Amino acid sequence: VPTKCRRFVAIDAVDAGAGLIMAGGEFELIRRHFTRAAPVGVLGVGDDCALLPTAAGAMAISTDILLEGRHFFPDVDPTSLGHKALAVNLSDLAAMGAEPSAFVLGLALPVIDDPWLVAFARGMYALADRHACPLIGGDTTRSQNGIVITITIFGKVLPAQALYRSGAKVGDDIWVSGCLGDADVALRLLLGEAQPWVDDAQRAALLAATRTALEWPEPRVALGLALRGLASSAIDISDGLLQDLGHILQASACGARLFADALPVSAGVAALPVELRRLATLAGGDVYELCFTAPADRRDDILAAAARASTPVTRVGVIEAEAGLRMMDAAGNALPPLSYGGFDHFA
Amino acid sequence: VPTKCRRFVAIDAVDAGAGLIMAGGEFELIRRHFTRAAPVGVLGVGDDCALLPTAAGAMAISTDILLEGRHFFPDVDPTSLGHKALAVNLSDLAAMGAEPSAFVLGLALPVIDDPWLVAFARGMYALADRHACPLIGGDTTRSQNGIVITITIFGKVLPAQALYRSGAKVGDDIWVSGCLGDADVALRLLLGEAQPWVDDAQRAALLAATRTALEWPEPRVALGLALRGLASSAIDISDGLLQDLGHILQASACGARLFADALPVSAGVAALPVELRRLATLAGGDVYELCFTAPADRRDDILAAAARASTPVTRVGVIEAEAGLRMMDAAGNALPPLSYGGFDHFA
Repeated sequence: VPTKCRRFVAIDAVDAGAGLIMAGGEFELIRRHFTRAAPVGVLGVGDDCALLPTAAGAMAISTDILLEGRHFFPDVDPTSLGHKALAVNLSDLAAMGAEPSAFVLGLALPVIDDPWLVAFARGMYALADRHACPLIGGDTTRSQNGIVITITIFGKVLPAQALYRSGAKVGDDIWVSGCLGDADVALRLLLGEAQPWVDDAQRAALLAATRTALEWPEPRVALGLALRGLASSAIDISDGLLQDLGHILQASACGARLFADALPVSAGVAALPVELRRLATLAGGDVYELCFTAPADRRDDILAAAARASTPVTRVGVIEAEAGLRMMDAAGNALPPLSYGGFDHFA
Repeated sequence: VPTKCRRFVAIDAVDAGAGLIMAGGEFELIRRHFTRAAPVGVLGVGDDCALLPTAAGAMAISTDILLEGRHFFPDVDPTSLGHKALAVNLSDLAAMGAEPSAFVLGLALPVIDDPWLVAFARGMYALADRHACPLIGGDTTRSQNGIVITITIFGKVLPAQALYRSGAKVGDDIWVSGCLGDADVALRLLLGEAQPWVDDAQRAALLAATRTALEWPEPRVALGLALRGLASSAIDISDGLLQDLGHILQASACGARLFADALPVSAGVAALPVELRRLATLAGGDVYELCFTAPADRRDDILAAAARASTPVTRVGVIEAEAGLRMMDAAGNALPPLSYGGFDHFA
């Protein structure tokens, strides 16, 4: 059994959207009501996917609810929404090292808007086709209150090869894929929350540079598959690096040192004031890159796997025995703990 | 391949809540956007569950969205809501002859109401435990607009033994389990739509007699399992007998004769004016009994299977070659076609 301790089923634990460590409070209230010892034979509980045993291994399963006004803007481009609704679920499979099999879609709509449906379906199917992950069924209903999108996704993985949150070891490197922070910057710009750092002259160019990361995230399925047997733990960064790395540390019963200024960023984010850059890269969610750990003597193998998956990866820290997360700046000085968390689903 | 014709994936087709035949109109618009040829190897498309192939058979999968104000009253007893949310999904497994494995739960809540959550979890877990169908994960989020409950359920079945909608043969008997109409009568009473037939003096007693069927439906899992290899087709009556039997007829490319006055009813429904009784039993949805077909020479086997499952069953019609559904009264006279359909998810 790859988990270190007895795991518990908690809704919102099998899912990218956890927020369990930092959120607390009301979140804990819900969690308590739906927490029980994991059923015999079911692995991955509390991870990005639950693993339901099958004769040939396991079916990896993840589910997400997306609500208009909470998870996406009412006027969002429906093609990108169709893409992203599936992408966030594919990302949960990627974080387990699972190969996509199929998905089901629930859709509650206040009105039947034909062009909207055409565009939504186009975005969803284009991504599904690229990952050979067909829609196999679903449910529709009229909604009185905004659009609701629910996807449950299925993948294949051998439990012994799956990437869990619980396998990080002292001395392991911490890696992330892609760049961090763009989605968070785009969201702040769209919400009008970037004024302290970004003036009107910069706004349009910065939004243009970062918006794709927010609206068209690319799930790292190929990387997840390439990391099987290589990474000691993995998670996707849907709720922000600090929070999601925190899940690995908690599940693996260890701590970490994080090189805050070594985090990979796009040119747009690199040019931002350091305060906003750190906020966006450390706490910004909605990223759908992978954070993973691997033994330090496997660095060449990790880089080769990443190259096979055509996915850039960057070393950003090291796993330590001492509990907690210590952040260092480029000069090697300790940074104070950030007072903000990642995305709290019940804030 | 047990399906007779090429099947198409359409969201809302894998699900009890279809309404595809009678609804038309706006429903067709949605369906069109999400309809594609079924993926290779995936059976059950357009049925109560999709069957995703596994090394040892198939995983039966069904998904449902339940919205406050549309699928349940805001002040409904949360214990019964927790029960029913899972029951309607177990019923989809029952209709395929699948054995429950596990489920995931999505829950969007406008407020964290501790006693409500205690009660909801109690109702859900009690039913889950009785069917050895554990919760293995999920997602939670805050909702601005009412409660959203989404469940995706998984079961085991051998594709060759599964109960499809498409297997009915000319000459087969048509059977239903349990009693029909109670849930519809209870709903009409709660909505104040029963006044033409029921006076105030009768109302309280009739509601007391029928309300359990609406709020505490018992999914016919044991019957579905007992009917494997015996029934030629099956569906659950979530959208009303006429509509759901219509799905069997369409999928099986045949017609039927239905003995409208032979439909099994409780004492409360039996005492109603014939017009309301027929409306409730023929068109009333939210029933979660099984409608199934079987060869006429297997009647004793069907009754034995039903006895093993401790579930009453009644013969209510016969499959015919001529397309369409012909309803007969107790005297053998043809009844006019009903002008009302079952539950339309987009009405």
